[in-house]
Amino acid sequence: MTTWLTSLQTETPQEGFELAITLARKGVAYTQTSPEIRKKLRPHYAENADSLTMASHVIAVHFQTVSAANNYWK
Amino acid sequence: MTTWLTSLQTETPQEGFELAITLARKGVAYTQTSPEIRKKLRPHYAENADSLTMASHVIAVHFQTVSAANNYWK
Amino acid sequence: MTTWLTSLQTETPQEGFELAITLARKGVAYTQTSPEIRKKLRPHYAENADSLTMASHVIAVHFQTVSAANNYWK
Amino acid sequence: MTTWLTSLQTETPQEGFELAITLARKGVAYTQTSPEIRKKLRPHYAENADSLTMASHVIAVHFQTVSAANNYWK
Amino acid sequence: MTTWLTSLQTETPQEGFELAITLARKGVAYTQTSPEIRKKLRPHYAENADSLTMASHVIAVHFQTVSAANNYWK
Amino acid sequence: MTTWLTSLQTETPQEGFELAITLARKGVAYTQTSPEIRKKLRPHYAENADSLTMASHVIAVHFQTVSAANNYWK
Repeated sequence: MTTWLTSLQTETPQEGFELAITLARKGVAYTQTSPEIRKKLRPHYAENADSLTMASHVIAVHFQTVSAANNYWK
Repeated sequence: MTTWLTSLQTETPQEGFELAITLARKGVAYTQTSPEIRKKLRPHYAENADSLTMASHVIAVHFQTVSAANNYWK
Repeated sequence: MTTWLTSLQTETPQEGFELAITLARKGVAYTQTSPEIRKKLRPHYAENADSLTMASHVIAVHFQTVSAANNYWK
Repeated sequence: MTTWLTSLQTETPQEGFELAITLARKGVAYTQTSPEIRKKLRPHYAENADSLTMASHVIAVHFQTVSAANNYWK
Repeated sequence: MTTWLTSLQTETPQEGFELAITLARKGVAYTQTSPEIRKKLRPHYAENADSLTMASHVIAVHFQTVSAANNYWK
Repeated sequence: MTTWLTSLQTETPQEGFELAITLARKGVAYTQTSPEIRKKLRPHYAENADSLTMASHVIAVHFQTVSAANNYWK
């Protein structure tokens, strides 16, 4: 796999949030390496409320990490 | 996407809690970008006890982050 | 919404635990703003073991936050 | 409710683990205040593997808190 | 119950990971005290992918605690 | 079991993320020690959106640990 993560530092909290989203998706992509299958699964979870909450939860955990890495952009 | 998050600092813990709610919702909105579909899903989870607990859980995780960012408003 | 959270500091760990319960409930109340619907949902989760464990989990996450805010009442 | 939590400090990590169990159970007890109903629910979750894992998860979260409160009994 | 946890300190991160597994199992054992019932439940979760992921999750939470207790074996 | 974890330190955040994946899988492997059964379970969760999100969640928790161990590669 190519380089996709060289730093946890971001300019703004919003960029940190977007990095958290990337990290959450990468956790899925390393587990299911086929982009075709991931694409096929997308309609299921993107239209299921609990699936979306679960996805938001993973983002929240990564956002804790990224926020700490940036000293909360204080 | 436009700028929606410029700081994790808030005046009061209650504003911090409300920011945590915003963050939880943004996690959903980035995953399901259609406001129509999100609106359609709302009745399901808003009237399901476990879905509400799951939503409250995500808020709790973000509230940890926001609280740390504000040094717990000490 | 009126002011309901002005501080994370509490006198005792037990009051901190009770604040964590309040925070968990507020996470639900902001998501489902109708007290009638929340009341209607109560029998379901209050008599379901897994729902109670999930609720206890959210309290645990908030109790981490409140405990850190109070330096663990050392 | 009477006083049940006056300190997060314990003599040993094992006592800290047992306090974490108490905290997890209290989270349930505050949500479902009837001991009769809680007792009735017990057979369900105590013989269900996933329910037990969920209960263990809540204990783990509280054990993080109690461990930090005791500076990890170093 | 006899003494089973006297320290969170371990020699290596791998021993710390194995302690995290012990902690996760103890959380189950305190909740379901019958070894016979726990043994009976084992085939269910050990052959269910989501149950295994849930078990791995609890280990991960305890590993955070044990890692912090050992200052990450730096 | 042979030695598989001697350090939480990594050169880059990406290697840290990959270590988090290893830790998540080891949590499963210690619980279900048969590689044959784990292999049999793989198609189920790798093609189920919620299972993938759950797996990504466990990675996120371990990534918090690994990131803290590396002082966020600052």
